[in-house]
Amino acid sequence: MPQDSQDLVIGFPLFHDADLLDVMAPLEALGFLQRPRARMTLVGPEAGKPVTLNPGETRVLPDAGFEDCSDLDVMIVPGGMGLVKALGDQRYVTFLRKHAREARYVVGVCAGALGLACVGLLNGHVATTHWAFLGVLGLFPEITVAPGYPRYVISGNRMTTGGVTSGLDMAIALCALLGGDDEARQVELLLQYAPRPPYGAGDPSVADPTTWAHASLRLETLRTDRAAFVRKLLGLKPIPPSLPAESD
Amino acid sequence: MPQDSQDLVIGFPLFHDADLLDVMAPLEALGFLQRPRARMTLVGPEAGKPVTLNPGETRVLPDAGFEDCSDLDVMIVPGGMGLVKALGDQRYVTFLRKHAREARYVVGVCAGALGLACVGLLNGHVATTHWAFLGVLGLFPEITVAPGYPRYVISGNRMTTGGVTSGLDMAIALCALLGGDDEARQVELLLQYAPRPPYGAGDPSVADPTTWAHASLRLETLRTDRAAFVRKLLGLKPIPPSLPAESD
Repeated sequence: MPQDSQDLVIGFPLFHDADLLDVMAPLEALGFLQRPRARMTLVGPEAGKPVTLNPGETRVLPDAGFEDCSDLDVMIVPGGMGLVKALGDQRYVTFLRKHAREARYVVGVCAGALGLACVGLLNGHVATTHWAFLGVLGLFPEITVAPGYPRYVISGNRMTTGGVTSGLDMAIALCALLGGDDEARQVELLLQYAPRPPYGAGDPSVADPTTWAHASLRLETLRTDRAAFVRKLLGLKPIPPSLPAESD
Repeated sequence: MPQDSQDLVIGFPLFHDADLLDVMAPLEALGFLQRPRARMTLVGPEAGKPVTLNPGETRVLPDAGFEDCSDLDVMIVPGGMGLVKALGDQRYVTFLRKHAREARYVVGVCAGALGLACVGLLNGHVATTHWAFLGVLGLFPEITVAPGYPRYVISGNRMTTGGVTSGLDMAIALCALLGGDDEARQVELLLQYAPRPPYGAGDPSVADPTTWAHASLRLETLRTDRAAFVRKLLGLKPIPPSLPAESD
């Protein structure tokens, strides 16, 4: 795509074992924006050094490194199995805090909302996340968890989404915020986004109890690890309400 | 993911400017399969040599090259702006024909259906594709285009889908074919696939005429190029009905 100084820059800070579709679904939808056009930037520890996303051990090449990335108009933060480890990497944490300051929108897709929460970027906001981790998000005293299983929640210039595929609904809504309803409607049609999930079992309010039990069990270790991480974070180093981490 | 000889191998033959989500949406959903587990293989001209997908000029690293890829249980062929050029690459065409022979399922996502059609792999089948290219698919005398805008069509061991996001519905259906309904229902829930498209404008049967006209215009050059390619292909080198390319 020929670049233009008027293009929006949309950045995706990646980490090893970030969730593939948390990144790629919004990237695809926002990539169809025409007015304004959006340039996508995958950001990783180092430009050109592969980052492996999951599932599939899919290797992608970041366009920029954490330390040499230009300002972002929109920052979209994925979840994924590697989230807790990434939050232990000071370069990643610094990147999120720094780029949240200038971005017009700061987005957490799926458990990316937990990532934002852990670095203090959702304090004072209403938010959601993947259904399996709503309880973990609820541990943060400064965050109001939206009721139910919304696809996305907009709170000021923060956006958070439900699990994985919710990133698509969010991205189309974000197309509207950036380019207006007509533009967003075209993106929805260009992507042929008239979904018909085969089972209608896509969140706990509609799934049968057996499916829910099995799916929950598969995420149990991840949920426990994340809850332990957040409890430790909040207990050892609480973020004071008077000094949100993103505005100091 | 630890590999096991019992794992299914699901291959995605890539080309430059293949559509990103045509690949990544099915890869994500199938990556959640547990019984059987599926190993994903991105295939490109050369293993480890980046292929750029669009939108976003997203660079991914193929796991295998066209000439050194092991047998596939499932082959999933994307569409994208680079499709016609890819079909001019004999290595790509040879790969599709060769691997279609042993695969349990051969899938065309979005305009990937045109790719399959062009190499003779949909002859005698019912199929669909992105709404904008149904007319191009209709040029093939040996293919029956399914009426309307289905998310996916199963015809023997061939599957084809509507545009881009349809790959998600197809992939969950494919999870069911490979692992049964219970497994597929869990994948749907794990992905929180309870979509709520913001506009309900996702195919021409539901989009307003203005959105449809603008979206069609944006795809007009691509549609014209593809139609010209297919017309030339069918005129110069018709595939004889008695000798389908995939079974000789």
